[in-house]
Amino acid sequence: MIKHLRSAADLDAATATLILDTAGEMAALAGREVKKLPTLRGRTVVNLFYEDSTRTRISFEAAAKRLSADVINFSAKGSSVSKGESLKDTALTLQAMGADAVVIRHPASGAPHRLAAWVDGSVVNAGDGTHEHPTQALLDAYTMRSRLGRLDGLRVAIVGDVLHSRVARSNVLLLTTLGAEVTLVGPPTLIPVDIAAALSPATKVSYDLDSVLPDMDVVMMLRVQTERMQDSYFPSAREYSRRYGLDLARMRKLPEHAIVMHPGPMNRGMEITPEVADSSRSTIVEQVANGVSARMAVLYLLLGGKA
Amino acid sequence: MIKHLRSAADLDAATATLILDTAGEMAALAGREVKKLPTLRGRTVVNLFYEDSTRTRISFEAAAKRLSADVINFSAKGSSVSKGESLKDTALTLQAMGADAVVIRHPASGAPHRLAAWVDGSVVNAGDGTHEHPTQALLDAYTMRSRLGRLDGLRVAIVGDVLHSRVARSNVLLLTTLGAEVTLVGPPTLIPVDIAAALSPATKVSYDLDSVLPDMDVVMMLRVQTERMQDSYFPSAREYSRRYGLDLARMRKLPEHAIVMHPGPMNRGMEITPEVADSSRSTIVEQVANGVSARMAVLYLLLGGKA
Amino acid sequence: MIKHLRSAADLDAATATLILDTAGEMAALAGREVKKLPTLRGRTVVNLFYEDSTRTRISFEAAAKRLSADVINFSAKGSSVSKGESLKDTALTLQAMGADAVVIRHPASGAPHRLAAWVDGSVVNAGDGTHEHPTQALLDAYTMRSRLGRLDGLRVAIVGDVLHSRVARSNVLLLTTLGAEVTLVGPPTLIPVDIAAALSPATKVSYDLDSVLPDMDVVMMLRVQTERMQDSYFPSAREYSRRYGLDLARMRKLPEHAIVMHPGPMNRGMEITPEVADSSRSTIVEQVANGVSARMAVLYLLLGGKA
Repeated sequence: MIKHLRSAADLDAATATLILDTAGEMAALAGREVKKLPTLRGRTVVNLFYEDSTRTRISFEAAAKRLSADVINFSAKGSSVSKGESLKDTALTLQAMGADAVVIRHPASGAPHRLAAWVDGSVVNAGDGTHEHPTQALLDAYTMRSRLGRLDGLRVAIVGDVLHSRVARSNVLLLTTLGAEVTLVGPPTLIPVDIAAALSPATKVSYDLDSVLPDMDVVMMLRVQTERMQDSYFPSAREYSRRYGLDLARMRKLPEHAIVMHPGPMNRGMEITPEVADSSRSTIVEQVANGVSARMAVLYLLLGGKA
Repeated sequence: MIKHLRSAADLDAATATLILDTAGEMAALAGREVKKLPTLRGRTVVNLFYEDSTRTRISFEAAAKRLSADVINFSAKGSSVSKGESLKDTALTLQAMGADAVVIRHPASGAPHRLAAWVDGSVVNAGDGTHEHPTQALLDAYTMRSRLGRLDGLRVAIVGDVLHSRVARSNVLLLTTLGAEVTLVGPPTLIPVDIAAALSPATKVSYDLDSVLPDMDVVMMLRVQTERMQDSYFPSAREYSRRYGLDLARMRKLPEHAIVMHPGPMNRGMEITPEVADSSRSTIVEQVANGVSARMAVLYLLLGGKA
Repeated sequence: MIKHLRSAADLDAATATLILDTAGEMAALAGREVKKLPTLRGRTVVNLFYEDSTRTRISFEAAAKRLSADVINFSAKGSSVSKGESLKDTALTLQAMGADAVVIRHPASGAPHRLAAWVDGSVVNAGDGTHEHPTQALLDAYTMRSRLGRLDGLRVAIVGDVLHSRVARSNVLLLTTLGAEVTLVGPPTLIPVDIAAALSPATKVSYDLDSVLPDMDVVMMLRVQTERMQDSYFPSAREYSRRYGLDLARMRKLPEHAIVMHPGPMNRGMEITPEVADSSRSTIVEQVANGVSARMAVLYLLLGGKA
């Protein structure tokens, strides 16, 4: 088993599949009301968050607690970090305190890689800058597989600001590893062709959502980060929504069986309309539930838990 | 048993009495050094706080942990809420993560009612706007009953800014359900007669604290929210304190057996003098202790715990 | 056993030695992968922090959780404290909620002493103003003893802004109680001679670091609080670093066996160079690990845990 999950690139197909299978077992146990497993009793998981992300933090916290681990939340705001402490010194501190796993969210791309060099425990990337968010990709893949039965050959459109999206980046890596065919869709300024190629040669690019939809099994809408909309490379909100927002009319262009995904939190009315978000094709709530199962599987496997 | 505790109006006399009896058992166990019960092991209680209220949050946290539940604190500050996520999406997220109970504090009156429509778990109102704070009313009723032996026929004065007080509102509802006689006391601008009548037809109103005190078994002083004192309907601090503050001279007008209550935190010197707050008639510290027992009882009964 | 740890002066030599021995047992258990002890199961430890100090907070949190205590974190920011609640009312609240121990960090010197007068549980000082930080002194003493085999007769230099350092103050008290010889080193404006004498008559003072180093077994570098460097009594950063910073050249003046300590977080390049901080003589990471063991020992002994 791998020791760290810094990037979706850490996962080969066999390892990724093992994580997805384990997540399935975790979900099955929860479904049978087995809500607490003793596996990680006595182990300490630290949530080291340099950015606010309550949803991701509590998803990891719930996952770790269901495995009976002790969880310590470390919010970098107001910590010695604000007194200028380096990531290295923080890492050594957590290491010395006996953290078995450090779940890190950081605004700088690559921070989890640096952290992994300084600690003995496992490092799990919970989002680093515009770089990666591998557990999001795992829960997305798990959701696709449980809804559609397979990943191999699945056609997935990822729509929006791919340039700045760690969700997109991790999904491209993981999905192509698992045999899916990814098409990136969005305004040309937000999908540099070289980036798509660098992520995976098999990745396609389109600037026209309508023409892509009829061929897709999955359409994944990325969150528009409204603070970026001031930037010159970003279309106006109205223009963006008109060309790349998913409304009922567009959803009907998808094949009957296709699903609609979103990592949340949504901007209802911007990249997705409320009717689509709440439709039966939407897996948005499922994704959240699957997030806990996927993170349980990751913590369980990285920390070497035995069933 | 009811599923949610959104309002004191959710409680009929039998249910309220069951909760008070259960709180008594919880307190008795704590008194015998049985500090941890296995009842809610594997269940998850989320504290969803859209307003800061450390006292209420840690009271619920202590209650849930003594029942062996896992507790996840979700402070809406700095969360995706500040990125514009709706209460509904937050609710669906918590739901998907498997929250068995959500304890919600929210500035908007009625938020717990909306939340209860979106989640499968139990919702407990920990204070919504100027609307209600039902567990405060339960702990207050518990305190009265344990000090004075009964609630039926008890004469209770609630003194202060009734207009904006969720504590007053929940207390009026619960106390009249349990047979107590409530008199609301304060400046006319802060006790609209129609509000008193709407809460309960039996509720009396007085603008003269001194004339009311000799007949009371309980006087409950409400906290003055100093940020409201700028408003035109509020008397000056000096005037308020002179007419409605409880000092030693006024306390002596109460019958020998009467008790003095305050939900805390107090403005010592404003609505209550330090001598009164620290006197043997004051139940202020007891109320805090009873708060943990009452909240244990609520979580225990709502989540269907077996003894 | 003592009930509170408000000051290093609460500790006589026998008690301090018992704590250090117990810390050693805690560390040994952790080394044998016994990471969780049932000793404090059902007991509640409250971290009452009026100042941000993530490192100290999570060290106490990890310590309490390894002893199976329930931990409640109470950050005074955004609490009713900011609504003007007094420390006394907060103390009565925690008391009423059944806190078995309160770990307090407070900007006012002496706050733990006042707190101890109001609560039944144990009070542990986690840093009060410029006054004391006794668990830091314990972990430092533990580190010295485990590296050098003894404390009696050990020669320890404490270097820097002694005037404002609670770490220095607690270390002087504890180390002299345990028979070490302390020399305070720093600019004259930061080491008033009367303070040194008041702490312990045996304490020496020097303004010349270079002349002191060859005789030391331990050199403990204090953190420069950069916000104080604006003050007139503080040398310039360059001057401070030149005269009192520890670099490789200065470290080589120490005896072969001597160790370098720092309470963290470090200002690398100011009071200590990166090369020294990361050298094999540096115990900085060990100190953090020992902090958890020392705090386990304190909580265990104060709360009367049986093995």
